Amino acid sequence: MSKTPTCDFAIIRHGQSEANKLNIFTGWRDSPLSELGVSEARAAGKLLRAEGFHFDLAFTSLQSRAIKTLWLVLEEMDLMWIPVRGHWQLNERHYGNLQGKNKIEAVETFGEAQVKKWRRGYDTRPPLVELDSPDYPKSDLRYRYVPETALPRGESLKDVSARVLPFWQSEILPLIQQGQKILIAAHGNSLRALMKHLEQISEEAIEAVNLPTGLPRLYTLNDQGLAQDARYLGNADEVNARILSVANQTRRV
Amino acid sequence: MSKTPTCDFAIIRHGQSEANKLNIFTGWRDSPLSELGVSEARAAGKLLRAEGFHFDLAFTSLQSRAIKTLWLVLEEMDLMWIPVRGHWQLNERHYGNLQGKNKIEAVETFGEAQVKKWRRGYDTRPPLVELDSPDYPKSDLRYRYVPETALPRGESLKDVSARVLPFWQSEILPLIQQGQKILIAAHGNSLRALMKHLEQISEEAIEAVNLPTGLPRLYTLNDQGLAQDARYLGNADEVNARILSVANQTRRV
Repeated sequence: MSKTPTCDFAIIRHGQSEANKLNIFTGWRDSPLSELGVSEARAAGKLLRAEGFHFDLAFTSLQSRAIKTLWLVLEEMDLMWIPVRGHWQLNERHYGNLQGKNKIEAVETFGEAQVKKWRRGYDTRPPLVELDSPDYPKSDLRYRYVPETALPRGESLKDVSARVLPFWQSEILPLIQQGQKILIAAHGNSLRALMKHLEQISEEAIEAVNLPTGLPRLYTLNDQGLAQDARYLGNADEVNARILSVANQTRRV
Repeated sequence: MSKTPTCDFAIIRHGQSEANKLNIFTGWRDSPLSELGVSEARAAGKLLRAEGFHFDLAFTSLQSRAIKTLWLVLEEMDLMWIPVRGHWQLNERHYGNLQGKNKIEAVETFGEAQVKKWRRGYDTRPPLVELDSPDYPKSDLRYRYVPETALPRGESLKDVSARVLPFWQSEILPLIQQGQKILIAAHGNSLRALMKHLEQISEEAIEAVNLPTGLPRLYTLNDQGLAQDARYLGNADEVNARILSVANQTRRV
């Protein structure tokens, strides 16, 4: 007899977006999933279902690519009916004035070291957007209930942690501790901020952590609400191949 | 200058399901949207967007065909991020032992008059399912929080009204009165129960009311919370053609 697989919760980074495909810094801009992104999300849902996972509740950001990923996963799992909560705190890192720029072009303009620092430095903010920029989220209806002081103009991973972690502690962790099985569909950086905390990764080491798109990562927590166990769902070779493909995004080809 | 269209809220019956296509009594069984149903839902979303509508919040049932319809509408409207609340009170009428049966075969077995009474009689229940039937929703996880006394074994339209209307009065109407623009994606009979109340349609007259699939109906309410104005979105000819196509479902062809 096979035992039912368990985890306290799972995270999944959205499948490839159209902007990812064009290698563009997207941040708080909205970009739909690419065809590959749709397949990645469906494959994740099929795998979770085949392995017998169940979720009671799902969290996501207010950005279409994460929401769509979640919807596709839930559709494949026959769990379209579970409650879904969308929150801006799970949004991607705001990439400031890099938003809309191609990653290779950014390397050519600013140099590889600077771009790497912007992408990977824990405490490095990108150039901030002006208050009248369309990339400043003030006029976007979906953020109308976000306090103006919390609206980002460009964030470091540390800034992202400062909104993700209080939200995690107050809104998600207590539900997990009550026994709710939770799925979080979000973004490369909001999920890296969470991983850093849960897996106690240092500021230096988090630079090298790449979360593959559309690949569920499963957690069980200890009494302190930190990771007791964390693993990707899927076979090791595929997981490694997908981690490498994220790392190669700013390499010239 | 065109004026921004307004309504207090809109209802939409899910697009054609696979079971609709096979002309089967579906009720509380889950059936995915057919290809046509997906197109109907997308077309409704495109039309709502083209006409400039906006919603702040959406309600739906716990059944996939209504949820998927809502998701497709929201995707086309670029409103994937609005909160969505799923509730069993908005589910389709439970069709008792007719669930899974073809409508034409039911006419051949039970006679046209009896089937018409089951389909259209306001106070006529279908044959009830036994407590050990797979059609009794007790073992379905999605209904685990529904009080056992509320779980249906077969419902008349009057029974459906008895769950839809208290939910409408306590959970939806107050939000509309606070100014929230609401979209409700649900089912032929849960929405007919609501229409009967809002438009003060008699028990006799509601028999002949056919709500087309995937066609938004727009309401403004008066001070009593009843319809001041109600209209389908779309041109009159198409609306009439689609109303007729629902009426013909049990006609022998």
